[in-house]
Amino acid sequence: MAYFENVNKIQFEGKDSTNPLAFKHYNAQEVVAGKTMEEHLRFAMAYWHTLVGGGSDPFGSETAVRGWDRFSGMDLAKARVEAAFEFIEKTGIPYFCFHDRDIAPEGGTLRETNKNLDVIVAMMKDYMKTSKVKLLWNTANMFTNPRFVHGAGTTSNAEVYAYAAAQLKKGLETGKELGAENYVFWGGREGYETLLNTDMKLELDNLARLYHMAIDYANEIGFGAQFLIEPKPKEPTKHQYDFDAATCIAFLQTYGLKDKFKLNLEANHATLAGHTFEHELRVARLHGMLGSLDANQGDLLLGWDTDEFPTDLYTTTMTMYEVLQNGGIGSGGINFDAKVRRASFEPEDLFYAHIAGMDAYAKGLKVASKLIEDRVLDQFIDTRYASFKEGIGADIVAGKATLASLEQYALDQGPIKNVSGRQELIKSVVNQYLFG
Amino acid sequence: MAYFENVNKIQFEGKDSTNPLAFKHYNAQEVVAGKTMEEHLRFAMAYWHTLVGGGSDPFGSETAVRGWDRFSGMDLAKARVEAAFEFIEKTGIPYFCFHDRDIAPEGGTLRETNKNLDVIVAMMKDYMKTSKVKLLWNTANMFTNPRFVHGAGTTSNAEVYAYAAAQLKKGLETGKELGAENYVFWGGREGYETLLNTDMKLELDNLARLYHMAIDYANEIGFGAQFLIEPKPKEPTKHQYDFDAATCIAFLQTYGLKDKFKLNLEANHATLAGHTFEHELRVARLHGMLGSLDANQGDLLLGWDTDEFPTDLYTTTMTMYEVLQNGGIGSGGINFDAKVRRASFEPEDLFYAHIAGMDAYAKGLKVASKLIEDRVLDQFIDTRYASFKEGIGADIVAGKATLASLEQYALDQGPIKNVSGRQELIKSVVNQYLFG
Amino acid sequence: MAYFENVNKIQFEGKDSTNPLAFKHYNAQEVVAGKTMEEHLRFAMAYWHTLVGGGSDPFGSETAVRGWDRFSGMDLAKARVEAAFEFIEKTGIPYFCFHDRDIAPEGGTLRETNKNLDVIVAMMKDYMKTSKVKLLWNTANMFTNPRFVHGAGTTSNAEVYAYAAAQLKKGLETGKELGAENYVFWGGREGYETLLNTDMKLELDNLARLYHMAIDYANEIGFGAQFLIEPKPKEPTKHQYDFDAATCIAFLQTYGLKDKFKLNLEANHATLAGHTFEHELRVARLHGMLGSLDANQGDLLLGWDTDEFPTDLYTTTMTMYEVLQNGGIGSGGINFDAKVRRASFEPEDLFYAHIAGMDAYAKGLKVASKLIEDRVLDQFIDTRYASFKEGIGADIVAGKATLASLEQYALDQGPIKNVSGRQELIKSVVNQYLFG
Amino acid sequence: MAYFENVNKIQFEGKDSTNPLAFKHYNAQEVVAGKTMEEHLRFAMAYWHTLVGGGSDPFGSETAVRGWDRFSGMDLAKARVEAAFEFIEKTGIPYFCFHDRDIAPEGGTLRETNKNLDVIVAMMKDYMKTSKVKLLWNTANMFTNPRFVHGAGTTSNAEVYAYAAAQLKKGLETGKELGAENYVFWGGREGYETLLNTDMKLELDNLARLYHMAIDYANEIGFGAQFLIEPKPKEPTKHQYDFDAATCIAFLQTYGLKDKFKLNLEANHATLAGHTFEHELRVARLHGMLGSLDANQGDLLLGWDTDEFPTDLYTTTMTMYEVLQNGGIGSGGINFDAKVRRASFEPEDLFYAHIAGMDAYAKGLKVASKLIEDRVLDQFIDTRYASFKEGIGADIVAGKATLASLEQYALDQGPIKNVSGRQELIKSVVNQYLFG
Repeated sequence: MAYFENVNKIQFEGKDSTNPLAFKHYNAQEVVAGKTMEEHLRFAMAYWHTLVGGGSDPFGSETAVRGWDRFSGMDLAKARVEAAFEFIEKTGIPYFCFHDRDIAPEGGTLRETNKNLDVIVAMMKDYMKTSKVKLLWNTANMFTNPRFVHGAGTTSNAEVYAYAAAQLKKGLETGKELGAENYVFWGGREGYETLLNTDMKLELDNLARLYHMAIDYANEIGFGAQFLIEPKPKEPTKHQYDFDAATCIAFLQTYGLKDKFKLNLEANHATLAGHTFEHELRVARLHGMLGSLDANQGDLLLGWDTDEFPTDLYTTTMTMYEVLQNGGIGSGGINFDAKVRRASFEPEDLFYAHIAGMDAYAKGLKVASKLIEDRVLDQFIDTRYASFKEGIGADIVAGKATLASLEQYALDQGPIKNVSGRQELIKSVVNQYLFG
Repeated sequence: MAYFENVNKIQFEGKDSTNPLAFKHYNAQEVVAGKTMEEHLRFAMAYWHTLVGGGSDPFGSETAVRGWDRFSGMDLAKARVEAAFEFIEKTGIPYFCFHDRDIAPEGGTLRETNKNLDVIVAMMKDYMKTSKVKLLWNTANMFTNPRFVHGAGTTSNAEVYAYAAAQLKKGLETGKELGAENYVFWGGREGYETLLNTDMKLELDNLARLYHMAIDYANEIGFGAQFLIEPKPKEPTKHQYDFDAATCIAFLQTYGLKDKFKLNLEANHATLAGHTFEHELRVARLHGMLGSLDANQGDLLLGWDTDEFPTDLYTTTMTMYEVLQNGGIGSGGINFDAKVRRASFEPEDLFYAHIAGMDAYAKGLKVASKLIEDRVLDQFIDTRYASFKEGIGADIVAGKATLASLEQYALDQGPIKNVSGRQELIKSVVNQYLFG
Repeated sequence: MAYFENVNKIQFEGKDSTNPLAFKHYNAQEVVAGKTMEEHLRFAMAYWHTLVGGGSDPFGSETAVRGWDRFSGMDLAKARVEAAFEFIEKTGIPYFCFHDRDIAPEGGTLRETNKNLDVIVAMMKDYMKTSKVKLLWNTANMFTNPRFVHGAGTTSNAEVYAYAAAQLKKGLETGKELGAENYVFWGGREGYETLLNTDMKLELDNLARLYHMAIDYANEIGFGAQFLIEPKPKEPTKHQYDFDAATCIAFLQTYGLKDKFKLNLEANHATLAGHTFEHELRVARLHGMLGSLDANQGDLLLGWDTDEFPTDLYTTTMTMYEVLQNGGIGSGGINFDAKVRRASFEPEDLFYAHIAGMDAYAKGLKVASKLIEDRVLDQFIDTRYASFKEGIGADIVAGKATLASLEQYALDQGPIKNVSGRQELIKSVVNQYLFG
Repeated sequence: MAYFENVNKIQFEGKDSTNPLAFKHYNAQEVVAGKTMEEHLRFAMAYWHTLVGGGSDPFGSETAVRGWDRFSGMDLAKARVEAAFEFIEKTGIPYFCFHDRDIAPEGGTLRETNKNLDVIVAMMKDYMKTSKVKLLWNTANMFTNPRFVHGAGTTSNAEVYAYAAAQLKKGLETGKELGAENYVFWGGREGYETLLNTDMKLELDNLARLYHMAIDYANEIGFGAQFLIEPKPKEPTKHQYDFDAATCIAFLQTYGLKDKFKLNLEANHATLAGHTFEHELRVARLHGMLGSLDANQGDLLLGWDTDEFPTDLYTTTMTMYEVLQNGGIGSGGINFDAKVRRASFEPEDLFYAHIAGMDAYAKGLKVASKLIEDRVLDQFIDTRYASFKEGIGADIVAGKATLASLEQYALDQGPIKNVSGRQELIKSVVNQYLFG
């Protein structure tokens, strides 16, 4: 059956702007910088927002009008699979992502829950046989159920920890079964509400233990997906341990885990932490840890995770700039961890929103590629740091300088001349690349 | 000569609240938790705020009325030394801290600048012979002079880098000469304004090189002070590389520097980074990196570094709680990196402000000590995490658990019972300890 | 039946700190500044948080353990009434507040919904006959139901507007029936998500029309309660029209409504708008519009409405300072619009939390009263502004000055001497009043 | 003499993107929506940023390289006039704006200060005779000098108030002399640092008195310029009384001043207050108070006024959208209250920056004009609110409805159907207008 039968006219050529169901910039097979857009962009649909989310917020109940809402339990789970594949096919999105509890309901025990999961996973696997769509990543939802009220890997309750470990085990098995290219850890409740009642040391040690167990088990079963940690500074907890890229890197280094993980970076999480998205990408890239993207955007005048579809071209451009400089996103992708606004509750809005996001990333890719091709920023940076390529600067970079040798250089020197950083000019040039 | 002659009646017993120049809680020799307050609190006066700062802000010029303002050049520098020691003696503060450029003016070349410095350092050393006061730490100001417009250790200009290295060398020598117990690195311009013109990798590599040179040179001259990095997320730059404690730890780990550094944590920097001060202290403490404190407070409704004197007892209490749990602050101290408000421009305000801060920390120490003595929080935490001391929890902590063993435990288990985190009760109890 | 049978030992004398169910500072009959605490503080329980809220958040489902959760529909509504009165009686809170939909479930039509409401209102009225408890205020929930997705009084859909008006009519009738002393308007959906699709002028005009209709109808039925508008800057909408006190005052003035309304000010809403709570109180007080308080507190490092129980004594003190300077809160009260943390899910936490809040306000009242009695701030302010009581200053205040007359005064004047604002000293003194 | 002799090749046609001194979108005589760009945009140069500001920040001294820096006193003031007119001519900016103290230094008394001012005003008047450039507005700097430490119109010191009044008088005379089209009030110190020492009522009353005196005096001398208040929420003070547009409107209404003032709205001030710029414009527009624009942009991840040149096309487009819907900006203009970054310290950067800003506004104007011409948003809004044009909706708008009549309509109604707000689609469409 069809859940989006009204939507049958998406236009991929981008020629006809009178049709709101048309792409303007995205064209899967168009080649940019030596690869097709599809290869560059590796878009994914987020199951939780698109199939499960209903538009509730802390002050209001669900608004979404969805064809599958008339079902419940396992019937609802199955209907969502059908709708998901219909949606994916119509939009041409090549990947999807899910939490375990997005796709199947909990049972009375974990064993029963796992059985529910098995049914849906089998159904998905079946669908995937005849579809091009692949699983970018899966993850375990260890934050919604009340049992995780004090955390999962950082809970104060050993029984909950055991439960989380078991759920994670199943997650790895599920990922293997469906050929997931990555496995994500988002620590929604891994943090604290108040230090007054928190043993931070034990909590972090336990979290690291869980990650080591996960590595061991993935090795054991031969699940080769890239492991990804997803930074977020706060919400739902007051402080999340995976605050930002640098914090995650510190944690992974401290616990000998750095080689086994990359980062799944989210735009809205970056800004909640006080960073631009491109900052987080750069930090990860310099550490060889740029794993995958949760593509969305926040409202910088609001202090919570709004998970809006990404439409800001400044950000999508700089994002693709970092990705291209990284040599691509590897086994990661661009997952729309984004939800239609509560007031955009009609099924068509799901399409408009994904088109808006895909087009914003496609245009961003094109502009970023052109900026790189023309060496707009590179050239400026080369010139700016040229003094480190010869003389005293080369000595510094080569590790040949000491405080004493540099003092000799500086002690009787006259005024030093710097040159302008030209921020306004550079921004103006970027505007010209963006807006023609 | 006397710069604060009107101030001759500070009362240390705290008995007479009608005298605004009286301490209410601070008493240097009073014993709390086995040590005198003086030993616990190790207060320091910040030379830049108290002797140099004049109350200017981005929209207004200096307001401060200071007796030494009638001098200039080296005469001003000398007058400030006199005033500093008079102030320190009258308040009973045992330490002070300074940047090189706080104490002596720049000359035409670095050589001349260093000569100016030598004169004042000699004068200080002389004063220190007959005074109890000691140098908690010194540092190099590598942010005020226009040459540092693009950074010092992270500049785009190798000549500036050489200059910074030379300045740092002199800083280490100065510290040694005056017996500094610590040496601080605050990277005021070590960051970026825009990624569009920034080679972050080169900048961070160069910063690490500078730190390695500093370690080498300190070893060479036998300067044994503790090295401290001071996190701050932004201001003056858009992004400072030493964003917060975790970011500094990641940097130090990445560049093999972690064992050589601790952190100098500042309350206002913590809140600008989105953290409570106690969070930053806890993170540092768990890594064995709690080095020293810049004691002040910000206004959480304002987005810049207000450097107010610390008067919030909630924060001073939790700060001293972390310090006590750390077994004290070691060679570090509690430096009032705080300035009187622009509207508090009279000399007396310097005294009122330091008394306010010292009293706030003294009361905080007492309350924290009592909380620890009564095991108020410890007891709660012990109970809360008790499940990790036996059975499956003990196995987890001992590293004996695997995902498979934990799954066995969880698979057929019934509902898990958690217990309340009791945040409201705990806060109420802390209020009782604070307010009687 | 009893929902809180384990709680039977609340101690009101505050003597025994080993009992967590004891008040330390609150004593209903204790006289402060000429009135009993009960008369000053007029506490209210918020029905939505204490009887209805279950601890869900955007990332997790309900955690609260409540005896009445085994019921549903009208049985649940009735059980909640029983629990509410049991809770109120045990805590000694004299007032309560509710939204219409807190107390009774919606039916198939508004007529049926109103019938449900009538049943519960009658039951409440019955309970109130034999209880001292009174209704501080009621209000209409015009934000939870999906029909209000685009607002209620500011909806884009006239049918929804009509529905809202009808719901408001019933709200006024309910208030009259139960003797509510105030009626509150909180515009949870009165705002916008994006200006791109919003006719702000029509929306504001319509909102004013609704308020005029409400005044007319209240007059018609002889409902004399004070009308209150509750400012909030954002959440759930991106921009709420009732942003803060000043914005509400501008709106009320523009639409000729100022004389008919006062403000219901909430601490957490103040800080979300970038203000201290005392600022909002002061602004309202100067306009004669300090109506009532929603007593809670936010976490200034988080960007959403956390609705924590008020435990910060600095804020409760300054709040009661403004209330006392206002000559009391009039027909308003101190409503605990506060929820126990999600992790404080046991029934006892409801008691601990209210005790924490009541004690914080009782202590705040005592300190504020002492500050006023001793004229601590008044005296300083009198001196500070003394120049406006004579000479040129008196002329200015009397309206006798002109630019020309003042120029005459200033033109040849020498340097003007200001005096310090003494912020640090004043804060130190306030600390002494707070902490002894 | 020429201060910008290297800059002699600005290109206004926008054809040649290889020349950084070329406009891409701005062309003064190009007609958009029935008027030339010059008539629409009415750009102004801000004297303080471009001629006076030197790039200092709270942590660093001036960096700017300016030809006139070799002068001091009145010679400096005169050199700046020359440079200003050279800059204005080369960029083709038609207006300028200044504070009194930007253009001439203070003397020993106000009388001497005014004499200095007279000299420069005469010089400017002379220049203006042979130039097309006009004075958009002038204002009085009543915040930099230490005498204003406690405010000017809201000072605690009557002598300072008198001085401010005298300075304001001269400001009005200066405006008249130079034909200023507006006169601006920015209350940089009109606010408070702490309520603990503040008589807010007296301060606001006095501020209103000053405004009334200004109106009287302007009438007296026949100075017909539009009076403008400039909202800003904070910085330098903790709280500025002119927080945002709504707050200013409330103040003006309360004191009977609303008809005499419009608002000078600044982008960066809007975001510091938690609003988008377009929100502030809309609020002002609906009250008929959209007076003039301070065109700049802030960094939403930083909490202070960064005054960056406006390059964000999303904002310039929505700004011009509001201006066009307002029927233009009237006697106001688009003043670049923006400074080159501290690291953009070369004279050329002043040109690059203004070109960047002018181009951003020119492109924004074009896109906004096209959005209006195509009725993209209007059409959507018309449809969205159509229900208020007939039936019950028309009754509501006509003021014919009552709560009772609306209840009749709603009481037995079935489920209400809303339609989607289509935020994602609209944003996608706006992107298409912006990026082609």
